[in-house]
Amino acid sequence: MKKISLFFVLAFLIIACNEKKETKTTSTELTAEEKTDAANIKKIFDTALLHGKSYNWLKDLTTNIGGRMSGSPEAAMAVKWGERVMKEVGLDSVWLQPAIVPHWVRGEKEVAYFVSNGKKTDMAICALGGSVATPNNGVMAEVIEVKTIKEAQELGEKARGKIIFFNRPFDNTLINTFSAYGGCVDQRVNGAAAVGKHGALAVIVRSMTNNIDNYPHTGTMRYGDIPESQYIPAAAISTLAAENLSKGLKENPNLKVYLKQNCRNLPNEKSYNVIGELRGSENPEKIIVVGGHLDSWDLGDGAHDDGTGIVQSLEVLHIFKKNNIKPKNTIRVVFFMDEEQGGGGARAYAEAAKTTKEIHIGGLESDAGGHTPRGFTIDANKANTATLKSWKKLLAPYGLHDIVRGGSGADISPLKSENVTLVGYRPDSQRYFDYHHAATDTFDKVNKRELELGSASMASMIYLMDKYLYNNTPIKQ
Amino acid sequence: MKKISLFFVLAFLIIACNEKKETKTTSTELTAEEKTDAANIKKIFDTALLHGKSYNWLKDLTTNIGGRMSGSPEAAMAVKWGERVMKEVGLDSVWLQPAIVPHWVRGEKEVAYFVSNGKKTDMAICALGGSVATPNNGVMAEVIEVKTIKEAQELGEKARGKIIFFNRPFDNTLINTFSAYGGCVDQRVNGAAAVGKHGALAVIVRSMTNNIDNYPHTGTMRYGDIPESQYIPAAAISTLAAENLSKGLKENPNLKVYLKQNCRNLPNEKSYNVIGELRGSENPEKIIVVGGHLDSWDLGDGAHDDGTGIVQSLEVLHIFKKNNIKPKNTIRVVFFMDEEQGGGGARAYAEAAKTTKEIHIGGLESDAGGHTPRGFTIDANKANTATLKSWKKLLAPYGLHDIVRGGSGADISPLKSENVTLVGYRPDSQRYFDYHHAATDTFDKVNKRELELGSASMASMIYLMDKYLYNNTPIKQ
Repeated sequence: MKKISLFFVLAFLIIACNEKKETKTTSTELTAEEKTDAANIKKIFDTALLHGKSYNWLKDLTTNIGGRMSGSPEAAMAVKWGERVMKEVGLDSVWLQPAIVPHWVRGEKEVAYFVSNGKKTDMAICALGGSVATPNNGVMAEVIEVKTIKEAQELGEKARGKIIFFNRPFDNTLINTFSAYGGCVDQRVNGAAAVGKHGALAVIVRSMTNNIDNYPHTGTMRYGDIPESQYIPAAAISTLAAENLSKGLKENPNLKVYLKQNCRNLPNEKSYNVIGELRGSENPEKIIVVGGHLDSWDLGDGAHDDGTGIVQSLEVLHIFKKNNIKPKNTIRVVFFMDEEQGGGGARAYAEAAKTTKEIHIGGLESDAGGHTPRGFTIDANKANTATLKSWKKLLAPYGLHDIVRGGSGADISPLKSENVTLVGYRPDSQRYFDYHHAATDTFDKVNKRELELGSASMASMIYLMDKYLYNNTPIKQ
Repeated sequence: MKKISLFFVLAFLIIACNEKKETKTTSTELTAEEKTDAANIKKIFDTALLHGKSYNWLKDLTTNIGGRMSGSPEAAMAVKWGERVMKEVGLDSVWLQPAIVPHWVRGEKEVAYFVSNGKKTDMAICALGGSVATPNNGVMAEVIEVKTIKEAQELGEKARGKIIFFNRPFDNTLINTFSAYGGCVDQRVNGAAAVGKHGALAVIVRSMTNNIDNYPHTGTMRYGDIPESQYIPAAAISTLAAENLSKGLKENPNLKVYLKQNCRNLPNEKSYNVIGELRGSENPEKIIVVGGHLDSWDLGDGAHDDGTGIVQSLEVLHIFKKNNIKPKNTIRVVFFMDEEQGGGGARAYAEAAKTTKEIHIGGLESDAGGHTPRGFTIDANKANTATLKSWKKLLAPYGLHDIVRGGSGADISPLKSENVTLVGYRPDSQRYFDYHHAATDTFDKVNKRELELGSASMASMIYLMDKYLYNNTPIKQ
C-alpha cells in the first residue's frame, strides 16, 4: 500500500481548482454594482447553508402534523404551526387571512380488485379528491380501457354500466416531468365528467407518475357542469396495477373490476392563509409576495408538495433578517391554504388585495418540490422579463441556468397584471412525480442541502426583485 | 366541489406550453448540421429513457454482488458479471485486461468508544482502506484534536502515545460538494503518516460528508515514506460521533478513546479491467474510451460509487447499437478495476495502450455519482476545449449547462497528452457525499430517470466527440 499512486487524489484537487478558476473568470465580467450583488448573493447562500432553519421546520411540520387536507383538523393545526414559526422569525407583523375551503374526507381505506376467469387480483387504488363514494357494497362491472378524454366521450352510450379505465401514461421522453404531467392530468381532472353523463359507473385513472410502482397518487378531480345525479366515483390506480389491469383486459376483455370507496364531500370550512411581512424601508406600500401552499394531500406528509415551498418562503425572510438586509419594498410571505382542492386561499388573497387596493409589484412561488435548484420561470411584461433574464450571470454560479418565460404558480397567478412580475421557482423535476400526491411524499425524501440551496435561490431572486424591479417599471395599477 | 376553479390546472398547462415555446426559439438558432445533431441527440435521450438497460444492470450488480473491494471474491464476481453484460449488448469484441491490485480486508467489525468520568460513549467508526490493525486488545489513549495536517505535524513529540483526532469539517458554503471534499480529504489520506512518525498510537478522521449523521465513511489512506514500524491504525468516525467526541474533549481533555480494528493488507492479487468496443467505421485505429470503475468499497453496495458510472458507460454503446449509430472511431467501454485503492486498473490500461501504441483521441469518465445531469469538465488543449464548449447549445436543453475546464477522472487521466481530449461527466453533487464510501451507498438511492439522463448525456458527448473531434485536431502521438 505504501507505493500507492496519488493521482486519484490529485484528480479531485485539480477538479476543485479548475472549478474555482472558472468562477473567477466569470466574476471579472461583472460591473461594480453587479459585484456588490454577487457578494450579497454569496452571503445569502452562506446563511442558508450554515444557519438555515427550513429543514428543521419541515421536519416538525411533516412528522408532527403530517398530511393536512383543506378543511381537516391537521390543516387547522398547520395554520397554528405556521403562525408560530412566522412569529419566531421575528417578522414585523404576522396575521391570519380567512379563506373558505372545501372539506372532503377519504373515509375508510378503499378496496379494489379485478376478477378474471375466477382469479382475483388486488389493485392499489385511492379515491381522487372531490370524488363521491361508491354505493355501500361497492360497484362491480366490466371495464373499458381508453387513453384520452376524446376516446372516452366517443364511447357515448357504450359507457353505460361500465367502469372506464383511463390509462394514458406519462411521456417519459419529456425532460421536464411537469410537461409529462401536463400532458396526462386531464384524465384525472375531467375523466369522470366525460363518462358520468353517459351512465358509466365509475372511472379509474392511471396515477400521475413517471414510475412503474405500486403507489396510487391522489389529486383533485371535478364534475364540471354535469348534474349531481351523474356524479360517479373516481379513483387513481397505481401504475403497476394499471399495467396489470391492462394486461388482464387483453387476455380477457370481459373481466370485472370491483371498487369500493367511502369518501365524502362535507360542507365548506373556514380556514386561513398565514401571512407575515418585513415592511419596506422606502416603499412600504409596495409588496413583493413569496409563498407556497400549506395544505397537502393526506396519503403522505406533504413534504415536497408543498412543505418545502412554505419553509423555503419563510427562510427567505429569515435570511433577510439574519443578514440585516432591509428591503426597499415590503416582502410578504404567504402560506396559502387550499391549493390542492380549489385555490380557496389564493382567491381570498387576491380578492383582499383588490378590495384594499394593495399594490403588488412582484411575486415568487415555490410549488414544484424541494430538489436541487435549476432556475425560475417568469410571467411578466417584456421589460421586466428582460431585466430578470439579465440576472442570469449572478445566478448561474448556483446552478440557476434556466431563467425562462413560463407560469409562476397557482397561488400567485391570480395577482397577474401588466406590471406585476410573477416568478416560479423551478428545482430539478426528475424525482418530483415519484412522490407527488402519494404515500411516498415524506420528509426522508428531502435533501437538506437541496432544500437550503432552494431557499437561497429564492432569497437571491427576491433580493434582486426588491432592488431593481420597482425602479425599472412604472406602477400603473 | 363542482364550482372548483380550474386555474391551478391551467397554470400547469401554461408552464408546459411556455417551456415548449422556449425550446423552439433556441432550436431556430441552429445551423442545418446542428439541427441534425440536435435530432440525433433527441433520439439518444429517447432511447435511454424508453429502452435503457442501465437501471436493471445496476440493480443486478448492487443487489446480487454488492460491495466489491479490489482483490475480493466479490470483485472477481464483478469481473465475470461485467464480461457477461458487455457480451449481452453485442459489442464487436469483449476482453479482460490483467491488472495487479491490492488486497486489503476489513476483518471483524471495528469497536470504538470514549470514556469520560467513568461514562462510556460508543462511537461509529470504520477502518480506512489500507490501514493496519490495532493490537489484538486494541489501543486506549488520550486524544488530541486537530484541524489540519500542519497542526498535527507541529505536535511533534506531543503526539507520542496519543490518538490524534482529525476533525476539520466540510466547508458547506462551497456549492459543489467535490470542492468541500477536496478541501478535507488530505486528513484521511495523509493523517496517519503525519503523526505516525512521532509515535502517535492511531488516528481517527472525521468522515468525508456534508451531513451530520452516524455513518462512518471509509476511503483510502497511505503511509507515504515512513518506515513500516511507524505505521499506525487509521479509522474514519461518523460526523455525529466526531461532534460528540469534540464536545466530550471540551468538557474533559483527558478522556480516553478505545479503538480496535482488525484489518489486514494481504499480498497483491491479479484482477482485470473489463473492456468492450464498437469498431470505428472510418478510423478503427483511433479510440475514444468511456468508462467508470468496477471496484467499490465494502460498507455499501457501490451504487453511486461507481456502479452508476459503469452501467452508464456501457449504456452509451447500447444506445449506439440500438440507434444504429456507426461511430467513425472505435468507441471502447472500460470497467476499470481498483480506482479506490491505488488505480491498478488505470495504470494497466495506460501502460498497455503505450506498449501497443494505441491511439486514443478522447476519453469520458463517469465517477461522480448517478444524480441528475449538470455538465462536463474538459481537460484538453485550447482548440478542443473551445470545440466542446461550442456544443453547449445542443446540450443545454437537457440540463447540461456546466461545460467548463476541469479534470476528467482518476481512471482516464493517465491517458493525458496534448491531443487527447479527456472529459468528466458531472452530475449534480448535492447528495453524493451522503453516500460516498458509506453503508448508505445502495441501489435505492439511485433514481431511474436521473441515471438514464446521465447515460444519454454521456452518449451525446461521445456522439459529438466521435463526429467532430478527430477531424478538428491533427493527431500527433
